[in-house]
Amino acid sequence: MRREITGFSNPTVKYLRSLREKKHRKSSGKFLAEGLRLLTDARECSHVPETLVLSSARDPHSLLEALEAEVLATGGEVIETSPDILAKITGKSNPQAVAGVFAEFDTSLTGIDRTAADIWLVAQALRDPGNLGTMLRTGDAVGAGGLILLDDCADPFSVEAVRASMGAVFTQKVARAPWAEFESWLRKGPGQLVAASLRDAVPYRGAPYVAPCFILVGNESQGLPEAYEAACDLRVTMPMKGRADSLNAAMAGAVLAYEVLAVLEG
Amino acid sequence: MRREITGFSNPTVKYLRSLREKKHRKSSGKFLAEGLRLLTDARECSHVPETLVLSSARDPHSLLEALEAEVLATGGEVIETSPDILAKITGKSNPQAVAGVFAEFDTSLTGIDRTAADIWLVAQALRDPGNLGTMLRTGDAVGAGGLILLDDCADPFSVEAVRASMGAVFTQKVARAPWAEFESWLRKGPGQLVAASLRDAVPYRGAPYVAPCFILVGNESQGLPEAYEAACDLRVTMPMKGRADSLNAAMAGAVLAYEVLAVLEG
Repeated sequence: MRREITGFSNPTVKYLRSLREKKHRKSSGKFLAEGLRLLTDARECSHVPETLVLSSARDPHSLLEALEAEVLATGGEVIETSPDILAKITGKSNPQAVAGVFAEFDTSLTGIDRTAADIWLVAQALRDPGNLGTMLRTGDAVGAGGLILLDDCADPFSVEAVRASMGAVFTQKVARAPWAEFESWLRKGPGQLVAASLRDAVPYRGAPYVAPCFILVGNESQGLPEAYEAACDLRVTMPMKGRADSLNAAMAGAVLAYEVLAVLEG
Repeated sequence: MRREITGFSNPTVKYLRSLREKKHRKSSGKFLAEGLRLLTDARECSHVPETLVLSSARDPHSLLEALEAEVLATGGEVIETSPDILAKITGKSNPQAVAGVFAEFDTSLTGIDRTAADIWLVAQALRDPGNLGTMLRTGDAVGAGGLILLDDCADPFSVEAVRASMGAVFTQKVARAPWAEFESWLRKGPGQLVAASLRDAVPYRGAPYVAPCFILVGNESQGLPEAYEAACDLRVTMPMKGRADSLNAAMAGAVLAYEVLAVLEG
């Protein structure tokens, strides 16, 4: 179906805008992604938006036309609207020419096939959606299978997280679980749990990493709870030449993930 | 000097608020940093604020009292004000109990002593103040000497960059220069210029890094100009298992900086 929306007060505009808020994403089970690049990445990973919103001021683009055709072919809706209304929907003053509405993915641990990749990232109480998006991007870069979010993390489907992931939210699996559920799931199969730590740790460089390796990163300001660190199979230290905790969580995760990749590829 | 400010329309409040804007920082040569932790880090690096702004709702803290005494002893000013006015100054709805005004540091290349550290980070056209702050933090973590900002970068003295640096803006040297000036300065002394690249590059792992090593990172969306890459002494590739450019600039810089550190420390 294809239609045009010209009024700010149109209920569809109101609905699309509401997806910027967590409670509305939660109740509808949908999220918003913007930009041709992100939507093209999504399509390459077989994620076609249910609704495609196009700016009437867009430049013609073959990828955009292909996307449009696919949305229509899969029974989705294409909405054409003004740049101003699109700006209102995405909350950006300079909106991209296109945005899409996707159904949220299954984020249960049971949806994770741990044998599908050698590296998995695990974040605990990660509060910043930008950091979350960055970790998804890091996962994509090192060929990780996905990101497991423990306890109370930022929403991976927020506009900010999706944007910061630069499309990796579509290439990486995402799961959410409380620690106890994760620990029990982890111990039911192969998997080495590794964290950067100062306690009883070996140097991170060339440490005995084993696949599937689960790299656990703590909250931005508190770090990991002691009990979580204690539950790890391997604790590693990274050099900190400056003030004790000078590396941010996403950054430490990236350095560690690249080290694990190097060791596993031997 | 010590005084109390109770009115929103006080000219000092207006002046302090104006430091959130680049043009006012530039004309006054001052910048704002907030939070006891940041101000304590600053003090440990011998940076005492010219003006200290305290919330009347603060909890007593020995570090805060020490800071206050030092500001007064060095001829600075201590201002006490309401949490609401402090919120207006810092632009945060939940302001910390304290903020300080500092004179901007010298950011000329001539202020850099390249022999003072084995690693230096260099960023070109880095637009995001959060990424800039993160790079300062990475520099602190790997024991770098500082961050050199090439061409048109975000302002290292913006509230966002200072905040994201978590105090590293006080421990790391910061310099700003156009590329041509940097290249000419670099070639007047020892220094290996290294960049992550896809052109004519060797694997980043165990590459022949030499101190002082200058790690060059490009703009978030464009990467490095070809001419800058060509001017490097060493071009290295990092594995990218996902979509081609999946690692962000600050992240790539951190992974590379840790690798350089490991190689230099042998």
